[in-house]
Amino acid sequence: MSDTAMTTAPAELIERPTAGLPETIVWEGADDGALLLLDQTLLPGQVRYRRCLNEQHVWLAIRELCVRGAPAIGVAAAYGVCLGTRPFRTADAATFKAELERVAAYLISSRPTAVNLEWAVRRMCRLASEASGSPAEVWSALLAEAGVILAEDAEVCRRIGEHGAGLIPEGGGVLTHCNAGALATVAYGTALSLMYVAHEQGRRFQVFADETRPLLQGARLTAFELAAAGIDVTVLCDGAAATLLSQGRIGLVVTGADRIAANGDAANKIGTYALAIAAKYHGVPFYVAAPRSTFDLSLASGAEIPIEQRSGDEIRSGALGEVVALGAGCYNPAFDVTPAELVRGIVTEAGVVEPVTAENIAKIFV
Amino acid sequence: MSDTAMTTAPAELIERPTAGLPETIVWEGADDGALLLLDQTLLPGQVRYRRCLNEQHVWLAIRELCVRGAPAIGVAAAYGVCLGTRPFRTADAATFKAELERVAAYLISSRPTAVNLEWAVRRMCRLASEASGSPAEVWSALLAEAGVILAEDAEVCRRIGEHGAGLIPEGGGVLTHCNAGALATVAYGTALSLMYVAHEQGRRFQVFADETRPLLQGARLTAFELAAAGIDVTVLCDGAAATLLSQGRIGLVVTGADRIAANGDAANKIGTYALAIAAKYHGVPFYVAAPRSTFDLSLASGAEIPIEQRSGDEIRSGALGEVVALGAGCYNPAFDVTPAELVRGIVTEAGVVEPVTAENIAKIFV
Repeated sequence: MSDTAMTTAPAELIERPTAGLPETIVWEGADDGALLLLDQTLLPGQVRYRRCLNEQHVWLAIRELCVRGAPAIGVAAAYGVCLGTRPFRTADAATFKAELERVAAYLISSRPTAVNLEWAVRRMCRLASEASGSPAEVWSALLAEAGVILAEDAEVCRRIGEHGAGLIPEGGGVLTHCNAGALATVAYGTALSLMYVAHEQGRRFQVFADETRPLLQGARLTAFELAAAGIDVTVLCDGAAATLLSQGRIGLVVTGADRIAANGDAANKIGTYALAIAAKYHGVPFYVAAPRSTFDLSLASGAEIPIEQRSGDEIRSGALGEVVALGAGCYNPAFDVTPAELVRGIVTEAGVVEPVTAENIAKIFV
Repeated sequence: MSDTAMTTAPAELIERPTAGLPETIVWEGADDGALLLLDQTLLPGQVRYRRCLNEQHVWLAIRELCVRGAPAIGVAAAYGVCLGTRPFRTADAATFKAELERVAAYLISSRPTAVNLEWAVRRMCRLASEASGSPAEVWSALLAEAGVILAEDAEVCRRIGEHGAGLIPEGGGVLTHCNAGALATVAYGTALSLMYVAHEQGRRFQVFADETRPLLQGARLTAFELAAAGIDVTVLCDGAAATLLSQGRIGLVVTGADRIAANGDAANKIGTYALAIAAKYHGVPFYVAAPRSTFDLSLASGAEIPIEQRSGDEIRSGALGEVVALGAGCYNPAFDVTPAELVRGIVTEAGVVEPVTAENIAKIFV
């Protein structure tokens, strides 16, 4: 699966006792510490962490979807910058800078669609370029900054939930796609943050989770974390969502996003676009929940968002055995783009953008 | 999976050498023969036949989707009537009639949505009630009638393809869902018959097949039979179809149907409705291809069509291992209903019904 030959041993897989929902991302130790990433490819069956010690471990963890979800990828990549430059703390400033640039470009190459990845890496590079002091001092500032990005993510997600919880109809149904939950972030998640906050408020509702082919993040991850939190969750095949919508059982559709263009067009897991069309057809509001770091204002519309094409093997076999007949091709885009016209609003940590227009989006960045 | 305890040994699983695409349904032998049903749950990996000797074998083969697709189920059930009444050929006429009624009701109970099942069984019962002669003579007439239903199905499917092949855009893409092919019928299929006939005519086109969760009939069966016929076929996850439609690569969407109401509302495999909505949103024509035996004119609209709810285990595990997190429910309707307003036309053996109105549907039954 890797485009780059590993020059180091693979990351160690470790157990880590936790009560309730396991943490997604943990920096363990001090300057000589390690990045622990919950291996989400093993969920829901096994709870194991990859112990990442260098940038290759982080690159592979992102590429192989051990860590996934735009915000979580950003945090992991920020720590990846720290791990990749750690051996050069004692080098001269020019070497440290060159290594930082190499590591940054390398980490950004791990996945193309999620904007938070590049956003977090660039933020780390900017901090380094603005910092004074020795490479060792700059490196310490980088590690502290990664910690800030991690803490900010949890706080931002919490606020997204607070802004959006009121959208959940009392006693009604909420439909989501893929996993935009605590496992896709540091905590709370984006789309699922609305549900966690509403649950804390004692509200009653039922969640329906698209299983989300090909990698089943809805069945494996969304169901896992909501069930762990005691929230009523039911999994359905992606193709059944339109029937559910036709029955009047869903009052809100909400998903996360991997990148949002300046006009509100939102890239998210493949299948989101079909869901948004079906929601529109049934007059059910479709919302996107995402932090401001998911917006890419340099892109005028969704047509400019690069879409990752993944291996047909994810359809062909993967966890499922050999299911595609020999002789057939496979088409496997990982994401699709939902045009802003289908999005009722975008829930961010700075409030709900509604209606979705470039003007209203620009306002949350003022 | 069976609601009824088996009182006989299960059907034997046998190999049967074939060149090219294996036959779906074969009556082997004469009066003392057996019904061979290609076990489609084992495709594409294994080509095996269930050798059915009694009505329980046939009931279970239908319930377990060994034989599936509305037309094929009808043919299998017709032979099931023969197998179930065979032991009573030497009984008195009253006993034979009572057994016929018992077997008919039992076979109809195997699956609720496909109308051809009931249609074929009722046709057999009507023939028996109109026939004169001893039970042995009536039984021989029943076996002949099952053969007529089988031969008619192949001929009807061929004509559906001839009426619809022209809808396939030259050099373009055709999108289908589930399997409405030779494997769902005696030969040719319904939706896929358009493609087989166009292929025979030397036309160029590319087929895209939704994998069709939960049981993957698109990936396993449609890809299997089209690839075997040398037709270019690419499998995609159901949620990716909207993206494909947005790219202008699809000129025709065509599916089969399990039951069509008098107004044109069409029940078909879960996911069809979502596809029809997405086709409408993109202005791509959505057609249904089905024989007249799939129409149920006793139902005014799709709201009256019974929808089979199947076990959540098909989502939870099945061929896929345990993928749904513990604590989560599953919602698993096997079919959905596409309202006539989303259907551009219905391709039948008697021509194309277009636009889809109760008046135009009534005309093909005159």
